[in-house]
Amino acid sequence: MSTLAERILGAAEGAYVDRAVDIAFAHDGTGVLTRETLREMGVEKLACPERVHLIFDHIVPANTSMTANLQKELREYASSAGLAFSDVGGGICHQVMSEGVVLPGQIVVGADSHTCTLGAFGAFATGVGATDMAAIWASGSTWFRVPETIELSLTGHLQGAAEPKDLALAYVGRLGMDGASYRALEFTGEAAADISMAGRLTLCNMAVETGAKTGMFYADTTTVRYLAGCGIAADRQKREEAKYAQSHEFDLGAITPLVAVPHRVDTVREVAEVAGIPLDQVFVGTCTNGRFEDLQRFARIVRGKKVAVRTIVVPASRAVLQAAAQSGALADIVEAGCVVGTPGCGPCLGAHTGVLGEGEVCLSTANRNFKNRMGVGGEIYLSSVATAAASALSGTITEPEVV
Amino acid sequence: MSTLAERILGAAEGAYVDRAVDIAFAHDGTGVLTRETLREMGVEKLACPERVHLIFDHIVPANTSMTANLQKELREYASSAGLAFSDVGGGICHQVMSEGVVLPGQIVVGADSHTCTLGAFGAFATGVGATDMAAIWASGSTWFRVPETIELSLTGHLQGAAEPKDLALAYVGRLGMDGASYRALEFTGEAAADISMAGRLTLCNMAVETGAKTGMFYADTTTVRYLAGCGIAADRQKREEAKYAQSHEFDLGAITPLVAVPHRVDTVREVAEVAGIPLDQVFVGTCTNGRFEDLQRFARIVRGKKVAVRTIVVPASRAVLQAAAQSGALADIVEAGCVVGTPGCGPCLGAHTGVLGEGEVCLSTANRNFKNRMGVGGEIYLSSVATAAASALSGTITEPEVV
Repeated sequence: MSTLAERILGAAEGAYVDRAVDIAFAHDGTGVLTRETLREMGVEKLACPERVHLIFDHIVPANTSMTANLQKELREYASSAGLAFSDVGGGICHQVMSEGVVLPGQIVVGADSHTCTLGAFGAFATGVGATDMAAIWASGSTWFRVPETIELSLTGHLQGAAEPKDLALAYVGRLGMDGASYRALEFTGEAAADISMAGRLTLCNMAVETGAKTGMFYADTTTVRYLAGCGIAADRQKREEAKYAQSHEFDLGAITPLVAVPHRVDTVREVAEVAGIPLDQVFVGTCTNGRFEDLQRFARIVRGKKVAVRTIVVPASRAVLQAAAQSGALADIVEAGCVVGTPGCGPCLGAHTGVLGEGEVCLSTANRNFKNRMGVGGEIYLSSVATAAASALSGTITEPEVV
Repeated sequence: MSTLAERILGAAEGAYVDRAVDIAFAHDGTGVLTRETLREMGVEKLACPERVHLIFDHIVPANTSMTANLQKELREYASSAGLAFSDVGGGICHQVMSEGVVLPGQIVVGADSHTCTLGAFGAFATGVGATDMAAIWASGSTWFRVPETIELSLTGHLQGAAEPKDLALAYVGRLGMDGASYRALEFTGEAAADISMAGRLTLCNMAVETGAKTGMFYADTTTVRYLAGCGIAADRQKREEAKYAQSHEFDLGAITPLVAVPHRVDTVREVAEVAGIPLDQVFVGTCTNGRFEDLQRFARIVRGKKVAVRTIVVPASRAVLQAAAQSGALADIVEAGCVVGTPGCGPCLGAHTGVLGEGEVCLSTANRNFKNRMGVGGEIYLSSVATAAASALSGTITEPEVV
């Protein structure tokens, strides 16, 4: 009788355990700090370099000489240390890790807060700081406090234009931004099986927005089939009865299109309540909603029409861009007048592209709308892909139609 | 008996003339300065706003809050002043102007040095400073000194893997970086007719690298057919005998793949002479070689293979990206492992993306390899698309194969 987190970490909630990690990754931002810390620690050789992944996604391609020099050094380090390396344009770390790297039952740490995304595979995946990551690269292991688990029990079916992203906004709204601090979220219930891997990744991605260590789905036939598509044989995880710290039920049939309004992720409104707000930019992408399924849905809605506002679409990875190019979705997106960016985090972090001007308003499919995140004085609304597409076509926040 | 420049400007070489301009454009970089100058001049109303185009291409999408705020102000100005406006992702000003805007016989000024590109249509097209541009927007006209003309007479046919870009490097190498200061280059000879519009744009683009005011082709059936494809009816220009300041003959059959080596455009070598130099980055794009024809050629060479080095491909405009997406060329490019950037100037100017680190070496299809242009301490070699493709596959400067 244990939660999925307890089972993977091999101890009961509240216990402190030392565990070898299966995968430990960093990106270009945190990787620089991890490398620097290793140097200060005097570490020459990593415990398990084959378990370490370095993925350039935050500022790609390099925006300044300083960034270029840092990336150059990190690229050379990845080569000399024998790390798995994904260069600029390969995609967002969480997406790259979801394309046949992370497996059910693994312990995964990433030097990025949205590492919780990968709990979608039935892994225990959580973010750590860059200095913690240095110790993990050096030793191959780290300590965890086994978290209590909050159950999110899913029933019914998404209706109309509602997407897993709307469910994600709904649970963040209900739990609040610190409602699950240091807990694990476990998605259960008959409806969990209906949700695609892309949807599960979206749902687990936003777990950290409630303060949770991770969000998790049991690996089931959907997971096994998805991994088979990546050429990997994996087993389902049999669910046990478990004791949860809290249980929340979500009737998917009652989920409507939602928006998180500035400047908190948990201030969630029905799209209808904020419809008509004029937009300066729409952004479709990120580790929340930049997958092929998302780009396909967006393309279906804008196909043959023209966007009325600056609309930036950034595929989450090269594989996503490739699928979009081959399927014709990309051609539809470009023809609709969108701007396509290099696979990576894109405008989400406001560091190098798609930055908002003072007073500009953006509707984004990302996971965070904190003040000034995408540019000083900019306002960010968070929504699903369908809401973003409908709003791009009208130039104002708009309820998506049922297609 | 006059040169094409004399005919369009309506006066003999050496004369100073005042002329109304048909098209006056600026980009996001120079547009900011032009707008600021107009404000200082107290100009409220432009003479002919319908002839003024504002095209965002240099830093797209915005990289910082400052850029975003400047672009926001300029976007609002374009709207209130009634200018033709192309927002982020529409493409490079010269390319956008080449897609059915500039016509034979027109006088075109752009606040960008590579405005000479548009002489490919049999227009007199030249770059002016941003403050000059303010006076032009205010008055609708400007003064010119009618330039002497240097004839570049073309014979024969390009052989093997040689491209118009190799011919461009050949003429810049022969004339030198100040060999045509304040002259016009006129491309003549039986072989001129064989060169596609894309090739002519490449050849005229590099005129300024010899110090020339512009490069020009007579409008012929190729021009008329190209413009018809843009939905525009245009007439051929009948060539007259003319007196040239100099005449240079180029036998296209003798042109081999060439490279301009750091840090001057006129230090031109055979690719064979520098073959084997290791590369850190390959860049395909810009107003020189970012057209659909270029992307098609690149895709044909890399199709089904993998690039061995970081390779950034940036379509020159949305129309180019659209054509590449629809034709399958883009899918081939992505599958080969390239990084695709947002249509615009991309890494060419080293301002916001694809910046080189200290000591990094880039092979680029652009037009300038000045020291530190793409990043402090970076080295830039300039080549054709075919040379760039062959070199991307090997990771070192490599002679293109004949396909």
